[in-house]
Amino acid sequence: MIRRNEKTNMMKLKRTTILAAITCLFLQPVLVAQSEALMGFSKEAAATQLEVEAEFDQLLNADNLDEWMKYMSARPHHVGSAYGKEVVDFVAAKFTEWGYDVKVEKFNVLFPTPKVRILTMTEPTVFEASLMEPPVDGDASSTQTEEALPGYNCFSIDGDVTAELVFVNYGIPADYLELKKRGVDVKGKIVIAKYQGSWRGIKPKVAAENGAIGCIIYSDPKDDGYYRGDVYPIGPFKNEYGVQRGSVMDLPYAPGDPLTPGYGSTDDAVRLAVEDAPSLTKIPVLPISYHDALPLLKALEGPVAPANWRGALPITYHIGPGPTKVRLKLEFNWDLKPTYDVIATLKGSTYPDEWVMRGNHHDAWVHGAADPISGLVALMEEARAVGELAKKGIHPKRTMIYCAWGAEEPGLMGSTEWVETHAEEIEQKVVAYINTDGTGRGYLGAGGSHTLEKFFNEITQTVQDPQKDVSVFERRNAVEIVSGRPAWSHYNLSALGSGSDYSPFFQHLGIASINFGFGGESSGGEYHTMYDSYELYKRFKDPDFAYGIALAKVAGRTSMRLANAEVLPFEFLHFSKIVAGYIDEVSALADDMRKKTEMENGLIRDGVYALVANPKEVNVIPEVQDEVPYFNFAPLENAIKELKKQAAAYDKAAKSYEPDSKSAAALNQVLKGMERSLTRDHGLPRRPWFRHHVYAPGFYTGYGVKTLPGVREAIEERDYEEVSKQVEILGDVLLSFSAKIEEAVSIMQ
Amino acid sequence: MIRRNEKTNMMKLKRTTILAAITCLFLQPVLVAQSEALMGFSKEAAATQLEVEAEFDQLLNADNLDEWMKYMSARPHHVGSAYGKEVVDFVAAKFTEWGYDVKVEKFNVLFPTPKVRILTMTEPTVFEASLMEPPVDGDASSTQTEEALPGYNCFSIDGDVTAELVFVNYGIPADYLELKKRGVDVKGKIVIAKYQGSWRGIKPKVAAENGAIGCIIYSDPKDDGYYRGDVYPIGPFKNEYGVQRGSVMDLPYAPGDPLTPGYGSTDDAVRLAVEDAPSLTKIPVLPISYHDALPLLKALEGPVAPANWRGALPITYHIGPGPTKVRLKLEFNWDLKPTYDVIATLKGSTYPDEWVMRGNHHDAWVHGAADPISGLVALMEEARAVGELAKKGIHPKRTMIYCAWGAEEPGLMGSTEWVETHAEEIEQKVVAYINTDGTGRGYLGAGGSHTLEKFFNEITQTVQDPQKDVSVFERRNAVEIVSGRPAWSHYNLSALGSGSDYSPFFQHLGIASINFGFGGESSGGEYHTMYDSYELYKRFKDPDFAYGIALAKVAGRTSMRLANAEVLPFEFLHFSKIVAGYIDEVSALADDMRKKTEMENGLIRDGVYALVANPKEVNVIPEVQDEVPYFNFAPLENAIKELKKQAAAYDKAAKSYEPDSKSAAALNQVLKGMERSLTRDHGLPRRPWFRHHVYAPGFYTGYGVKTLPGVREAIEERDYEEVSKQVEILGDVLLSFSAKIEEAVSIMQ
Repeated sequence: MIRRNEKTNMMKLKRTTILAAITCLFLQPVLVAQSEALMGFSKEAAATQLEVEAEFDQLLNADNLDEWMKYMSARPHHVGSAYGKEVVDFVAAKFTEWGYDVKVEKFNVLFPTPKVRILTMTEPTVFEASLMEPPVDGDASSTQTEEALPGYNCFSIDGDVTAELVFVNYGIPADYLELKKRGVDVKGKIVIAKYQGSWRGIKPKVAAENGAIGCIIYSDPKDDGYYRGDVYPIGPFKNEYGVQRGSVMDLPYAPGDPLTPGYGSTDDAVRLAVEDAPSLTKIPVLPISYHDALPLLKALEGPVAPANWRGALPITYHIGPGPTKVRLKLEFNWDLKPTYDVIATLKGSTYPDEWVMRGNHHDAWVHGAADPISGLVALMEEARAVGELAKKGIHPKRTMIYCAWGAEEPGLMGSTEWVETHAEEIEQKVVAYINTDGTGRGYLGAGGSHTLEKFFNEITQTVQDPQKDVSVFERRNAVEIVSGRPAWSHYNLSALGSGSDYSPFFQHLGIASINFGFGGESSGGEYHTMYDSYELYKRFKDPDFAYGIALAKVAGRTSMRLANAEVLPFEFLHFSKIVAGYIDEVSALADDMRKKTEMENGLIRDGVYALVANPKEVNVIPEVQDEVPYFNFAPLENAIKELKKQAAAYDKAAKSYEPDSKSAAALNQVLKGMERSLTRDHGLPRRPWFRHHVYAPGFYTGYGVKTLPGVREAIEERDYEEVSKQVEILGDVLLSFSAKIEEAVSIMQ
Repeated sequence: MIRRNEKTNMMKLKRTTILAAITCLFLQPVLVAQSEALMGFSKEAAATQLEVEAEFDQLLNADNLDEWMKYMSARPHHVGSAYGKEVVDFVAAKFTEWGYDVKVEKFNVLFPTPKVRILTMTEPTVFEASLMEPPVDGDASSTQTEEALPGYNCFSIDGDVTAELVFVNYGIPADYLELKKRGVDVKGKIVIAKYQGSWRGIKPKVAAENGAIGCIIYSDPKDDGYYRGDVYPIGPFKNEYGVQRGSVMDLPYAPGDPLTPGYGSTDDAVRLAVEDAPSLTKIPVLPISYHDALPLLKALEGPVAPANWRGALPITYHIGPGPTKVRLKLEFNWDLKPTYDVIATLKGSTYPDEWVMRGNHHDAWVHGAADPISGLVALMEEARAVGELAKKGIHPKRTMIYCAWGAEEPGLMGSTEWVETHAEEIEQKVVAYINTDGTGRGYLGAGGSHTLEKFFNEITQTVQDPQKDVSVFERRNAVEIVSGRPAWSHYNLSALGSGSDYSPFFQHLGIASINFGFGGESSGGEYHTMYDSYELYKRFKDPDFAYGIALAKVAGRTSMRLANAEVLPFEFLHFSKIVAGYIDEVSALADDMRKKTEMENGLIRDGVYALVANPKEVNVIPEVQDEVPYFNFAPLENAIKELKKQAAAYDKAAKSYEPDSKSAAALNQVLKGMERSLTRDHGLPRRPWFRHHVYAPGFYTGYGVKTLPGVREAIEERDYEEVSKQVEILGDVLLSFSAKIEEAVSIMQ
């Protein structure tokens, strides 16, 4: 489900951009931890661990990835499909063969599939949208149209609406402000929004909030088509017929089965009625290709769209409303479908009740060669090698659990239902969750808990890039440098929003998590289309699976070191610096908003906007906004001071700590629970499912992260009372985290 | 010839962008000079002058502009055309009727017109470019194809070349660096460049420097077509057939008749042979429409063009070379053609040998309703009113000369030849030159000598915007503010490059000049096409000629105040601040280049580029460049210190100066010559015709200005020896200017 977009990931990772600092920083020696010590390991244990990893590397075989991808992406395998079950059985059998204790856990989840999809332009001319992705030359997979789900947005409600069309750019809140300035109201209209700019589910959500009665989403060739490069099958980019499927449930409200919010969709679960499910859309919504969008957009009149709204279709982009009038008719099968999680356990030799979890989903929208099979085959090869090692007597100290999740695509259902079902045990036992999803060729992109940043950095310094004679860290760092950003002194984890199966572990339960993959040299337009095939993957993504193997190496080290460390490799100096940065950000955000509001209000009151307005166009002067007050950020400043103090104390104590088994066990017990102290049972405002108070997907971004979400979103949405409340909560959260560190320190002393 | 592009003009005008400073700055009272005193006038004289201006305003009548535009743009009137002569006779007759002493001065200039224009794609498929602009509905002018010059670039050489095509973006030097990185060489190829990004003549110049044998220029719909708005005749933007004609002579080398460089093309002038003319292109070049460009670009393969090269055609933009192969065959009539300048003089009552000159060209590429007739009709109405006043006994104190220049389009020929012919008299007599060209609806854009900035500011505060109840200054200032730039405390003149008839006065002879017009609310794609018609102007530009009248008001005040001032209204504090800013810029430019070069060289030597390079693409790692040395800028620092000192002394002296006729005459004599002390007879490196050492069009920008051009371009082009030479010259120039101020001060004391 996650979209591997290295560019976006890397933008998120950007912290500052001081061009001048680059070269000298790059020339500094980077932290290389190898062979001397590994975080959490004594010198001797580290040496053993490195030997194990060398043996692990030797076991990895790219041919396996190729063979398994070919098999698993041979036919459409979405939730509830016949081949989906075959994939599950295949994965389960493999794990069993490799020596794992395998459970296949079934959940019954709401999974609507389309019965009727009609999109007709009725005015000013008649045009029937084809809603078809035809087979293309050289891609046998694309001929399997019969088994495939056609283009649709999962969890759109049924509907039959006819209205004038309005083009709303990406359909995010800022776009509606632009519409307002131009005197355009979407009330009673159908909107057409471009994909991208936010997670897709935000588009119908915001459209409905603004009174629209239907929503069409299309892939503009500028963002996702010929503008970017040659289209499939000549190149990997989206051809005119490609349609991005995808879920539009209210993911930032809560992922998982909409009928069982907060608890598992087991056979006997109490289910909401479909019409009471809170995370379904409020209006019907359908994704279409740019082939189908072109006539609709071409016929629009009204104001010309702002320059940054315009795509790459050969038209003048108008906003409307009308004269384009469309009928959108959608009906879905609202059936429950079984979904299967494959849970493969390798019991820990020393700490069987401490679990290191590693997951990747198996369900796809169609063939899903890239998403998710490219990640899954790397996970399987990793698990196979770990199993081989165990057969040779090299057992992990902690229990390792490999998971192939079902029903990720419609809304992280397999993982969410599993997490909700086993919440108590997970909270007690899970040390960390490591996630992957689709992967490709290029540079390592990774996000996660910053308590693991230092640990993860060590790993990125030891895995070689398959194309260049340097570590994956160095190659990624080179990208930073060449892009004009400061060199990294260590691997920088981005903050995690949503979009893959880490979300229930991380943001619901507060399990420290990492998510990563390779990309940046394998872009394409196949995401969630009929064309995400083995054929495309072999031509344009990672043809020899060299990066699949690199992913297995990175993930294998991450899992195995977490499994074998004497002291769990968490660290708090990085985390405290990062959080301090976030606090600076929200404080700057309030200051900026205050200044901008003041300025804007000044321009409105002084009539400056009116002076500039072109009398031949509609210009609605914005209304004066409430001034932004000064907030009491002292609770955050005090909390971060304490956090930094305790982080430093931990760092100091850790340096001289020589673990004995008793104190280490107690210490690990504390460390394991650290991330959970960043959660609160009441969750975030408007969305209690999201309990983490440092990281969350944005309420209006969907996948995109909002750090310190309670405070940040309250500021952004000008809910000033809420700001103060959230500052109090967050201050308390950070203090309780600091207290946990203090507890850990006292154990070491 | 000049392209009214408010956006570009405004970008040039930008000095700093501190968002925060905006509101408070805007709320400060702006300098209003009205009714109390006018620069250069005693209190009593100012009162009289304001009365005259009020009367002048009353005389202006928009219907005249409409009627004259309708007449003058009724048929194509390019250089040498039958209707062109009728326009000249019309203008001359009008001036005579209004009481002016009218001379029509003829020059015989080289004006090539097309005989053969063939552009054929021969591979991979055959396509014959139509090279036609068909008539459109509702525009009778567009049916007059017989008399019109078709799409061509004037001063392209003849040629018949066949080669593979390479897409070179805008075809400026930076684009060739990108080609090099991708291993693409244009040697022996034909290049296709988009219009814009530089003046058009730069494209074949740089292409030839890089070894190309032919050049095609097309208007991409992103910059100039449907991407920007509805196309003609639905809207004003360029339709798929529109072709921008225009000169491609080496304008930054020297404008004017290529056969008489530096002297007038009079009947008896000695002329170069055409083949010896230095400012013709080195390769054949042809402009085409996006309709004709599409098949050529669509068939290109090779690397995908960088994102910022891509236009709005519905294709993946590839660079080539090939497989597109084209034949470009061009033949021209290389005849001399007569061109006529209408010079209308109204003798000054008090200082007949001090001339205020005011000009706008009359020749067009086709009908030229906007370019140049919209400006010309405003000039004529201004002149008519000035003539009416004279008939009533209100004579200007200085001589006012209104000029309608011929042959501006092929290369500022009418003005240049006139200036070259009368250089000595101009140097002795001309106080200032005021230029306009095409104009439209919206905001005032103006550039010129900064010694006139304070003077011009006063005028902009007194002319009302036709659409809003504020001065044209206030409306323009509102645009600055809303765009997030700091409010203006006074009207900011941009620096002048080239593109209209001020160039010979300003940059060749050093006559203080101003150039202005309205725009920003009347954008379109008609520039130099068949569609720059009366019909289009009336629908989309300035339908009621309200801004034409505003232009007459601004220009009329500028001319009349210069004509009547007791002390010529030059001022040097503004100028010294601006020049100090330019000095800071060139110094920062050197520093930036030094840092960037160091950094780039570091990245190359450290292999960082190689690390990032995608092995599936061609990546030529750039070569290490010579480090940028530290330059001795002390001569500039010392000179600017002296300039500031003298400027302050002048300001102080002027405040207490009470002019008597003798000292005022001596003072005016000095002031009149001030700008000329910024020139040197040897001119700029590589281009002696350009003598001004503060302002010049860029050698590689064409129209775009380079301030302190000697120093700036030497740095940009890494000619480090030249930098030191030019610093010496510029220091000397600024000191001689300061000495002139000192002389003026001593007269006042």
